[in-house]
Amino acid sequence: MLLSQIHEPADLKNLSLEQLTPLAEEIRQFLIEKLSVTGGHLASNLGVVELTIALHYCYNSPQDKFIFDVGHQAYVHKILTGRMDQFDTLRKHQGLCGFVKRSESEHDVWEAGHSSTSLSAAMGMALARDLKGESNRVVAIIGDGALTGGMAFEALNHIGHEKKDLMVILNDNEMSIAPNVGAMHNYLTKIRSDRNYLRAKDEVEQLLKKIPAIGGKVAKTVERVKDSLKYLMVSGVLFEELGFKYLGPVDGHDLPGLIDSFKQANNVSGPVLVHVLTTKGKGYTPAEQDSHKWHGITPYKIESGQLLKAVGNPMYTEVFGQTLIELAEQDERIVAVTPAMPGGSGLVKFGERFPGRMIDVGIAEQHAATMCAAMAMEGLKPIYAVYSTFMQRAYDQIVHDICRHNANVMFAIDRAGFVGADGETHQGVYDIAFMRHIPNIVLMMPKDENELRHMMKTALEYNDGPIAYRYPRINVPGVPLDQELTPIPIGTWEQLREGDSLTLVAVGPMVQVAEEAAELLKREGVSAAVVNARFLKPLDGEMLGKLAQGSGTILVLEEASQAGSLGSAILEFYAEQGISGLDIHLMGIPDRFIEHGSIKEQLEEVGLTVDHVVREVQKLRSGQHLTLGKKVNY
Amino acid sequence: MLLSQIHEPADLKNLSLEQLTPLAEEIRQFLIEKLSVTGGHLASNLGVVELTIALHYCYNSPQDKFIFDVGHQAYVHKILTGRMDQFDTLRKHQGLCGFVKRSESEHDVWEAGHSSTSLSAAMGMALARDLKGESNRVVAIIGDGALTGGMAFEALNHIGHEKKDLMVILNDNEMSIAPNVGAMHNYLTKIRSDRNYLRAKDEVEQLLKKIPAIGGKVAKTVERVKDSLKYLMVSGVLFEELGFKYLGPVDGHDLPGLIDSFKQANNVSGPVLVHVLTTKGKGYTPAEQDSHKWHGITPYKIESGQLLKAVGNPMYTEVFGQTLIELAEQDERIVAVTPAMPGGSGLVKFGERFPGRMIDVGIAEQHAATMCAAMAMEGLKPIYAVYSTFMQRAYDQIVHDICRHNANVMFAIDRAGFVGADGETHQGVYDIAFMRHIPNIVLMMPKDENELRHMMKTALEYNDGPIAYRYPRINVPGVPLDQELTPIPIGTWEQLREGDSLTLVAVGPMVQVAEEAAELLKREGVSAAVVNARFLKPLDGEMLGKLAQGSGTILVLEEASQAGSLGSAILEFYAEQGISGLDIHLMGIPDRFIEHGSIKEQLEEVGLTVDHVVREVQKLRSGQHLTLGKKVNY
Repeated sequence: MLLSQIHEPADLKNLSLEQLTPLAEEIRQFLIEKLSVTGGHLASNLGVVELTIALHYCYNSPQDKFIFDVGHQAYVHKILTGRMDQFDTLRKHQGLCGFVKRSESEHDVWEAGHSSTSLSAAMGMALARDLKGESNRVVAIIGDGALTGGMAFEALNHIGHEKKDLMVILNDNEMSIAPNVGAMHNYLTKIRSDRNYLRAKDEVEQLLKKIPAIGGKVAKTVERVKDSLKYLMVSGVLFEELGFKYLGPVDGHDLPGLIDSFKQANNVSGPVLVHVLTTKGKGYTPAEQDSHKWHGITPYKIESGQLLKAVGNPMYTEVFGQTLIELAEQDERIVAVTPAMPGGSGLVKFGERFPGRMIDVGIAEQHAATMCAAMAMEGLKPIYAVYSTFMQRAYDQIVHDICRHNANVMFAIDRAGFVGADGETHQGVYDIAFMRHIPNIVLMMPKDENELRHMMKTALEYNDGPIAYRYPRINVPGVPLDQELTPIPIGTWEQLREGDSLTLVAVGPMVQVAEEAAELLKREGVSAAVVNARFLKPLDGEMLGKLAQGSGTILVLEEASQAGSLGSAILEFYAEQGISGLDIHLMGIPDRFIEHGSIKEQLEEVGLTVDHVVREVQKLRSGQHLTLGKKVNY
Repeated sequence: MLLSQIHEPADLKNLSLEQLTPLAEEIRQFLIEKLSVTGGHLASNLGVVELTIALHYCYNSPQDKFIFDVGHQAYVHKILTGRMDQFDTLRKHQGLCGFVKRSESEHDVWEAGHSSTSLSAAMGMALARDLKGESNRVVAIIGDGALTGGMAFEALNHIGHEKKDLMVILNDNEMSIAPNVGAMHNYLTKIRSDRNYLRAKDEVEQLLKKIPAIGGKVAKTVERVKDSLKYLMVSGVLFEELGFKYLGPVDGHDLPGLIDSFKQANNVSGPVLVHVLTTKGKGYTPAEQDSHKWHGITPYKIESGQLLKAVGNPMYTEVFGQTLIELAEQDERIVAVTPAMPGGSGLVKFGERFPGRMIDVGIAEQHAATMCAAMAMEGLKPIYAVYSTFMQRAYDQIVHDICRHNANVMFAIDRAGFVGADGETHQGVYDIAFMRHIPNIVLMMPKDENELRHMMKTALEYNDGPIAYRYPRINVPGVPLDQELTPIPIGTWEQLREGDSLTLVAVGPMVQVAEEAAELLKREGVSAAVVNARFLKPLDGEMLGKLAQGSGTILVLEEASQAGSLGSAILEFYAEQGISGLDIHLMGIPDRFIEHGSIKEQLEEVGLTVDHVVREVQKLRSGQHLTLGKKVNY
């Protein structure tokens, strides 16, 4: 085994060029075996085996900085930097993180779970290097999908202007998570299809260099002719126009070729882009054949490629997707918009049923939001289906374009709450706090799939501005579904259980936690009311008034940032109404980032479980205060 | 006067082509005269006089949709759509809005104060049009500066792919607000400088069309040669590669030329980009000579071009800029980053003093934030100087790249609070609410310029993560300045006045309001304590504990969204500490967008004045509840 000799990148450099190819094969087998047990991002990592080896072979990490865009394709990097032994714990609680993680290794210099940040990070590191008078290399590795995110273009525009030494590796696998869309994708496809034509490229470039510089008016003409010849023979003119030296395309599974390209790139002064063509899932047939499905996967059987999915109720995502089809059959105004997540957002079948009404804009959360506002103004009912964490990218567009225009945009906010193995970059715990203060928006969360369906109808019939529903990344409870969908009156909560000792006000999956806690408390003689706070905005003022006249003790349960979310809104409500003297307690997510693990472990960590609720109520009744780790920042 | 005959766009069509040029001259004189009294965005509007006339001459608004990117260059559009008589009230309270405003006219179809939204809006309208089976034209007018914003590229990428009929007018005036930076700018400059070369363009295009289509392997070669010839003769290949038909460049002050170009564009199927060259300030010498200074201006003397600035204390912005130079003299780690606002952010002198340490990234708020994170990781102390309202664009990058990495980024958040005449799109009233729930960040606001300077020192010496200070768009009070700058202990408030009837907890300019109110109340025998809540996060737990033991009545004053800001944080704090029974009242900005006017009028509108505070205290003491229009959404 070559792999067992590699404990740090320096070990790699002891291998001969010939040994690298069998090493790649060993790494590939390692990944296929390990991930068959743990699950994880298989296809993208199989695609960058040679690329990552070549990087560590040619450069000196950590002095040279490797910045992986969306760090889930850094498994090979982790293997080559001494973390091979930890793969059994991949994405598990306190185990190896599925993304680049600075606390794991000095070779991990930049973390990212959201896409398109690598070029900005690289520019920052290059600027810092030059200001400090240092000379290390900075290398950003970005996929063709991530390149279409707006901030990547902002960075390209800046980098191409400033002319710092900086290397961008465009890992072009024709695929972000969904098949790529966009003009940039079409452009890259054109380059790929022209490969055979480009053999003469180097010769032409040499020739061009030999044309002497000429002054005066003739010079411009000569320059233009040179540019034109270059366009004839060299790919990537678009990048050249933006100030980059373009190299490629190069076969991303050809180690000698990659290493040659990197050597060429090293001789370039200023920004250089190396266009590398890779195949997602390379070397494992099932993943090569359906790299979309094999992007992030559960454990699987290696030989058959069968994914071992837990049996259970459908996910909220699926109920959303199915219900949206039902609604869209009857309402032509519905158009679904997704930023590169048709699969993850449950829209694949919708897109098949209504091809013209499912719009995948690529990784472009900002554009998607603003486009929805315009469609709504023209009388459509666009639904922006987006993960809570990625919606963060569209905060300004939600404020400035959707809510300020009071446009009838519907939001389906998926992955609201903890997300489990993807960890801190993906937790959907801030959307209540960052949306609640925006005027005009209505924000809902259902306690179960039946309520989700009614909320979808509610949103469709609401024509007074933006309206959102959020739902978690879990299986639905499996309640019976009403045949007829009925709008829920805006701003009305639901009292599920009477009780005169205290009230548990809960939202989303916490409603079930509240109910179970109330049941346990009942056995102890404590009578807890339970309220489903299904509208996060506006609140149910009538219900809150009633609660104030009851026991006066309220415990708010929410799987969301405790700062600024539902509990905060309730406190504000009473203050605004001049109602004081209540005993209100908050149980939400404390003021820190919660790392990867299972959702159950994450809930346990922050105390959002039935047991914790029962214990808190007991403490309250015995006169002790809440102490659930909430004082992090005070 | 031709202008007096124009009440709606249809009237324009009654004029002959020859009459349009004198009309343009009349409009120009009208603008120069009116704005000399009201102030406003002069230079950009003088630049688009002919362009706007040509648009209304060639198309039929409102059936055809004109979407102005950053709608402050729509004055001519307002004049041509029947609002000429309202220019005396421009940007005044309840007067003509300085931006496109849907409530003003059916011809205003899209509002924007933030840049780069027009292409997404145009795409949304084009999609809606096609889904509804309609046939109107959609025209986005975007400046070269706005084109570099990431979301504009996201939209270009999508539009170029979908091939909808849609027209983009690139209004290239070589200037966003500051001189443009970026590779795209360099690219456009190259096109401009090549203009003389391009006369043969049309002929070449005709020739290319005549080359017959050929099948098989030869076809690709021929296509490539055609592309190459096109590159030789036609500008804008970058846009062509992204799927647009490029037309131009055309002189934006040549009415017949513009009208010809639009006619050409009408014959194009799919997306078309017309590259129009304009001169900011065209026709008014002072504005032409310094269009940067004349972007948004106060009233002025027409003949001399002298701006009539109110005399008074410097703005907070200036104190920031000056102090930053002092600090940077002594600390080489400081690097200032601005998204296209070196002037507005008070960084011009800093940039002159430290050319390599002032980085203008163009309109690229996202890239700027993430780049700062990377620079901080490499040991620098980047300061991200940004307006509160534009920082909204970087919310995700603040969460995901700065706070999650706990990077030592400093933020100088300018225009925090009301901004006056720019109105609702520019109000800086959400940053507390959208930052307070993010882990790791420290957030401050000074009561005066002396405290701002100490806060700047505080931020510089703080090395435990991100730290921000926010300050308003007003003149400083003019307090004496301490010679030596001393860090303020993190999370400490300041009690400015003792009092046992109630406590006014205030932040920023509201501290002075609280002090004056306390003084008035004192005359009535009401003893109000005043606390300067200079840390918005973390709060001063010790002080809050002390207040809870005092009168127990607290009035929180803040010029920020009442939902989710300081008052909300205080309520949460007491709930988390299990302290109940207090009488806490909130005076912030209610849950709606506040329109343009003076800052004084805006404060009056929401009740954040000395008089209102006194009256509220009187009501509280007489047992009445607060009724300051806060129940909009409940």
